[in-house]
Amino acid sequence: MTEIHAQQSTIVLFSGDLDKAIAAFIIANGAAAYDHEVTMFFTFWGLNTLRKDKAVKTDKGLLEKAFGWMMPRGADKLGLSKMNMAGMGPKMIKHVMKKHRALSLPQLIELAREQGVKLVACTMTMDLLGLKQEELIDGLEYAGVAGYLGDASDAKVNLFI
Amino acid sequence: MTEIHAQQSTIVLFSGDLDKAIAAFIIANGAAAYDHEVTMFFTFWGLNTLRKDKAVKTDKGLLEKAFGWMMPRGADKLGLSKMNMAGMGPKMIKHVMKKHRALSLPQLIELAREQGVKLVACTMTMDLLGLKQEELIDGLEYAGVAGYLGDASDAKVNLFI
Amino acid sequence: MTEIHAQQSTIVLFSGDLDKAIAAFIIANGAAAYDHEVTMFFTFWGLNTLRKDKAVKTDKGLLEKAFGWMMPRGADKLGLSKMNMAGMGPKMIKHVMKKHRALSLPQLIELAREQGVKLVACTMTMDLLGLKQEELIDGLEYAGVAGYLGDASDAKVNLFI
Repeated sequence: MTEIHAQQSTIVLFSGDLDKAIAAFIIANGAAAYDHEVTMFFTFWGLNTLRKDKAVKTDKGLLEKAFGWMMPRGADKLGLSKMNMAGMGPKMIKHVMKKHRALSLPQLIELAREQGVKLVACTMTMDLLGLKQEELIDGLEYAGVAGYLGDASDAKVNLFI
Repeated sequence: MTEIHAQQSTIVLFSGDLDKAIAAFIIANGAAAYDHEVTMFFTFWGLNTLRKDKAVKTDKGLLEKAFGWMMPRGADKLGLSKMNMAGMGPKMIKHVMKKHRALSLPQLIELAREQGVKLVACTMTMDLLGLKQEELIDGLEYAGVAGYLGDASDAKVNLFI
Repeated sequence: MTEIHAQQSTIVLFSGDLDKAIAAFIIANGAAAYDHEVTMFFTFWGLNTLRKDKAVKTDKGLLEKAFGWMMPRGADKLGLSKMNMAGMGPKMIKHVMKKHRALSLPQLIELAREQGVKLVACTMTMDLLGLKQEELIDGLEYAGVAGYLGDASDAKVNLFI
């Protein structure tokens, strides 16, 4: 209810697919470039986008360890939603992106942080999947669905990806 | 155009995946807890979330019967969008949810009904997939895309899951 | 900021699945029937919906050719997100749609054009996947994420499918 305030946008990234994560970050970076205040809320498999690429020693139960082993470790390890072909699809996509000088997913994430996109990790799914803060990249905020809804209620563009 | 009216939110649940259905109901319940008027519109595979878990005797054609056999019968039978692993993934997720005292999907659906979330089954896809009202849980509304658009046009948060 | 203007809606079609494309066009056509100004933005696999069904001779690199071969050629060739069963699922869906006199996907696309739905192909993914304008159906607009965001910022219903 301030008199002038920036347009706001939110994106829930639920998916852990490389192609969907790229789309999400391209939209987020585009909106930030147009001075939207952008919040990205990472939940379920989307959290894998934010994992550090090296294993971090943590103290967890067996089931949480199993999820940790099975899920891709970070933005560079994600598969495709279509034509994954045992990892050949992601290689092809990364190759054409490089050829066309498009930013890679890790670079898109870095740009989002530089542009002030708010990256929020969903604490409820972190608990469920046994992911600890020290396993995720730096510069994140941590919140639950209430935090997301607070931002989404003020935004005009709200996407679930 | 009333002077004060509650914030509205809508969610289309197209997906029949357990993880996406859980995410949809957590957001819907969260929004309802913040006094949003929430409409969930169930279409295509999302309708499986609303099926009764027991077979209901109905009079339908062979193809509709085939869809009925092949599609999961209710919220407790859904698979995961990732790491389904022939049913082991859903078991793991349900196990960790129970361990963390998170509500199960059937409980989330019950909570949504208690909180007055409007659950709308898409009549057009019910026709296509041959689903009858008596095969779905009680307390639903029935409408087509026009009904959905009416609610979505008044809402600020509109998600397609 | 005109005094009276039509309600606007946008749909990003990222998915190349038949069922999701049908849902997207049903919502778009419904909104257009209610006088919304509707923009559909086709990106990644969603572009396959817009491919001509015949091969078009173009001059491209090997990798782009490979994408062209592997991706479905047009609305009539798409698979299902669930129960695809090596192509039997789409056949079943098309069969029940015909039986119920529901419009097929190619007919839904035609209706969208007749109703003035703005169909926009994402130029960035066209570059990445090596798709040329002459391989896509007629009557499209071409834009990047900035064009999409311009429309989405004015819209109330924004969906990502």
